Amino acid sequence: MNLAPWRSILARSLYKSRNLRESRYFQLATVTPEGYPKNRTVVFRDFLEQSNQIKIITDSRSEKIEQIEAKNWGEICWYFSKTREQFRMGGELTLVGASYPDEDLQKARLQTWQNISDAARMQFAWPTPKTARVEDTEPFSSPTPDPTMPLDTFILVLLNPQVVDYLTLRGNPQNRTIYRLTGEEVWEVQEVNP
Amino acid sequence: MNLAPWRSILARSLYKSRNLRESRYFQLATVTPEGYPKNRTVVFRDFLEQSNQIKIITDSRSEKIEQIEAKNWGEICWYFSKTREQFRMGGELTLVGASYPDEDLQKARLQTWQNISDAARMQFAWPTPKTARVEDTEPFSSPTPDPTMPLDTFILVLLNPQVVDYLTLRGNPQNRTIYRLTGEEVWEVQEVNP
Repeated sequence: MNLAPWRSILARSLYKSRNLRESRYFQLATVTPEGYPKNRTVVFRDFLEQSNQIKIITDSRSEKIEQIEAKNWGEICWYFSKTREQFRMGGELTLVGASYPDEDLQKARLQTWQNISDAARMQFAWPTPKTARVEDTEPFSSPTPDPTMPLDTFILVLLNPQVVDYLTLRGNPQNRTIYRLTGEEVWEVQEVNP
Repeated sequence: MNLAPWRSILARSLYKSRNLRESRYFQLATVTPEGYPKNRTVVFRDFLEQSNQIKIITDSRSEKIEQIEAKNWGEICWYFSKTREQFRMGGELTLVGASYPDEDLQKARLQTWQNISDAARMQFAWPTPKTARVEDTEPFSSPTPDPTMPLDTFILVLLNPQVVDYLTLRGNPQNRTIYRLTGEEVWEVQEVNP
């Protein structure tokens, strides 16, 4: 497996901002079954091993699940405020839930579950997101889930970038490069006007 | 005109982060005519006077114009890293270009053009975005446009929020509130689970 040509640029951006927690947050856009755009902040959970796929996690009860089931495509917008760089990455989304048949991806799901904190794991046992607020705090303080056994609500989401639009605001004019996947591990690279 | 109930919360977030340039940046999701999500960082240019509409600006040659013409809806995701708050705002988009018939909105377009910097105005005279890079730097250093006369490429974009999903990561569990516009200036407010 070859790293995509934009991987080293992204790795450098992450390294330069490594002391900023929010540098690992980005915005993921999806489309509702009715054709409306949705957008939310999610956390970068690293790359899937031996691939260029980006890992995020979500709750099976989240609205984005229905959206991705209807249209399995997303666009990440990742802005690094310190270095003034933006990566827009469009690609296919895969939902790896408890019954997903691929053994390697189940291993990745388990490993990702193990890597997150107790506090993050607990959220998957909380009351249903975006329903009327449960005022009692007891349902939010359930016992810590087993770190070796992902809850059924835990979904690993993979985004497989097929177009990456890289913009760096430094320089006048600014610099912008489009990377397009045109074949297996073949990336076409084009410098464009910002 | 009454300010929407989420306006004071957003004003406080902006105030607390006033020394961070990037706190005025957010991500705008739209949908392509083919139904794919697109996402990019844009700059908050304040509210349209006497309204809850959010102003941004764009170039008439940008791909988002075609997207908005086909589907005039967007969702903003605005994350404040300092205060750990997120505003997701979905609403109708209006493109106010040179030939837009409304006189008040033409005034707003002119005023917005006047308020941006010379450097920002110059970008509207640059070569076409996202086409093959013009290597010569001369086309990028055209004379400064007249601050009293917006170029035809200058488009004021308005987003009129109809649903606002406010999340604050502080607190355990976190707090999340949904604001829905249900009539003229009537907002339904619901506390929901994070």
